Amino acid sequence: MTSQAPLTYDQAGVNYDLIDPLKITAQRAAAATASHLAGHGFSEVKASRGESAYVVDVGPFYMASIVECLGTKTLVADEMARQTGKSFFAGIAQDTIAMAVNDLITVGATPLVVQAYWAAGGSDWFGDAQRAQALVAGWKAACDTCQVAWGGGETPALAGIVEDGRIDLAASCTGLINPKERLSVGDKLGADDAIVLLASSGIHANGLSLARKLAERLPRGYLTEIEPGLTYGEALLAPTALYSPVTEALWKAGIAPHYCANITGHGWRKLLRHPSALTYRIHTVPPKTAVLDFIQKQAGQDDREAYSTLNMGAGFAIFVKAADAERTAQVARDCGIAAWVAGTVEAGEKQLLIEPLNIRFSEDDLALR
Amino acid sequence: MTSQAPLTYDQAGVNYDLIDPLKITAQRAAAATASHLAGHGFSEVKASRGESAYVVDVGPFYMASIVECLGTKTLVADEMARQTGKSFFAGIAQDTIAMAVNDLITVGATPLVVQAYWAAGGSDWFGDAQRAQALVAGWKAACDTCQVAWGGGETPALAGIVEDGRIDLAASCTGLINPKERLSVGDKLGADDAIVLLASSGIHANGLSLARKLAERLPRGYLTEIEPGLTYGEALLAPTALYSPVTEALWKAGIAPHYCANITGHGWRKLLRHPSALTYRIHTVPPKTAVLDFIQKQAGQDDREAYSTLNMGAGFAIFVKAADAERTAQVARDCGIAAWVAGTVEAGEKQLLIEPLNIRFSEDDLALR
Repeated sequence: MTSQAPLTYDQAGVNYDLIDPLKITAQRAAAATASHLAGHGFSEVKASRGESAYVVDVGPFYMASIVECLGTKTLVADEMARQTGKSFFAGIAQDTIAMAVNDLITVGATPLVVQAYWAAGGSDWFGDAQRAQALVAGWKAACDTCQVAWGGGETPALAGIVEDGRIDLAASCTGLINPKERLSVGDKLGADDAIVLLASSGIHANGLSLARKLAERLPRGYLTEIEPGLTYGEALLAPTALYSPVTEALWKAGIAPHYCANITGHGWRKLLRHPSALTYRIHTVPPKTAVLDFIQKQAGQDDREAYSTLNMGAGFAIFVKAADAERTAQVARDCGIAAWVAGTVEAGEKQLLIEPLNIRFSEDDLALR
Repeated sequence: MTSQAPLTYDQAGVNYDLIDPLKITAQRAAAATASHLAGHGFSEVKASRGESAYVVDVGPFYMASIVECLGTKTLVADEMARQTGKSFFAGIAQDTIAMAVNDLITVGATPLVVQAYWAAGGSDWFGDAQRAQALVAGWKAACDTCQVAWGGGETPALAGIVEDGRIDLAASCTGLINPKERLSVGDKLGADDAIVLLASSGIHANGLSLARKLAERLPRGYLTEIEPGLTYGEALLAPTALYSPVTEALWKAGIAPHYCANITGHGWRKLLRHPSALTYRIHTVPPKTAVLDFIQKQAGQDDREAYSTLNMGAGFAIFVKAADAERTAQVARDCGIAAWVAGTVEAGEKQLLIEPLNIRFSEDDLALR
């Protein structure tokens, strides 16, 4: 392994440089449609443009909505099913819902309804009853955890678009920000706020292209043990943590986050998501989960590369006033999710300083708007 | 051509018998999650279960949401682009939004926010600037027509799941039923109601598997002229009609539909969608669009097969009290969409009678719940 070149995210096949310009054009066209809401007596929350969920002021409360893709994690589940005979689609269902719910809650919304988008490469996919039932059971269990209603969804067979034997999974989620003071689109974010990081359960559902590429370099592939009794494949398939129980518990505890960031694609650079010019100084770095530590070492990534693409043990960031920081972490722990008061927000140029690792990310490292 | 066997929908590769059992299991699991809404002070509109959009009572109004897939129409657009050099993705964008919006409005909702789901086979898809810009421009134009805000979306690159060079397009849509008396989940549907059919613009986005299969049987394929100056491919790619301007105009005209059905997969059998035991008697059949007439003839389908899978000229059905029927059709025409007072609802066993064609569909022909 050590003789091989380091494996970067671009080499793993995802080129954000090709996607991001289209994304920016689309965002501009989308912004120009906001005026339609006035015809219905409503208006958008402009600060939600570019955030993880879109927010509309409908009078008595705000309405938030989102659609999110699982990504390529099913390819790992498919390969592990082939090699072990086990089905991992209950966990995959949780991953998919987590992608939507964890984004929706960043703006302060209570998720209410999830819709399923299960686009298979052919009708045959649904004929494997065991796998299909696992998907249904896992989807329902994740809805139960998030106290969200599963509204329905779409189960198309898309031969010629989705590859034979594969499935493209996504979820849409709609929620309300109620009461309106729960809105957290960053207008209250400022110097002296604390940064609380919530533990991830593993790789979650971002960075899988890299993780799959890496499996090809391992002599035993997904069956490589990363610690006694735990294979690389199983570790990758740990379902993504669901954070909405934490944000709901925070509100019940009287804590209103100033801002939240779901740490997904672009890794810790997501901490720079808000457009404000502020410095984010991290003094405490959560432990890496075993699978992320393994990936970093095997891929030969330095810390900067690893933290710029993977969650590295922190799946969600909550920005609160300093006086609420310890209590915020405790509320998360009471929900069964490890949490750390990890840093502070300061006046100053837009940058993220991960001091224990001597890493600095600047605004140029994250061009999402 | 005449020597070939008729082409059925099943032969075209979509086997609903494999998909529908999973769909039904999923619907049952989904129904069991409704109780979560009570924890947030809300409740579902139970009658919306199994309808085209899911509805939640959030107090001052109802909230409706949906996610919908375009299907395989992009495969026609891709092939036509290859053969003619033209981009059809502006129309494809409208198709995708129509799939979501036309479903959402069936329950009486005003569509407010659309989210884009554009999952490509690789980052390269987004690198074709002309095609990507057409998709953006068409998406925005459809939002403008429907007076809906484009909230944002997801543009993943899914190599290994979505085929190389292809894109899986879907849209989620969220809206409000406001005031609440606009709710149309069928509880008011009953004997003596009239059935008003709105014209389709062509095949819309259902039946494309069959239409593509048929192209393989034509010596000139998509470039076959179905009428002077109009190729089969171009005709297939006519963008799906957007019906939300009609439902909004109806409300402004003081007309509240008792029920609506978006005529998509399963063709006219969708007129049997509501669970009530009622007879739907059609006395006036709208003219077939040229492309659907062509498909029926070339595929050697009898009327029963054609009307059971394709829209055959009617893209949307509105059930209103008889006194509102003529005015409903006129409101649609004023929106630029041809419309016919086509039939009546009667007490009696659940069946659809298309009298001019001597076709009967019974409950057994549509098992969606």
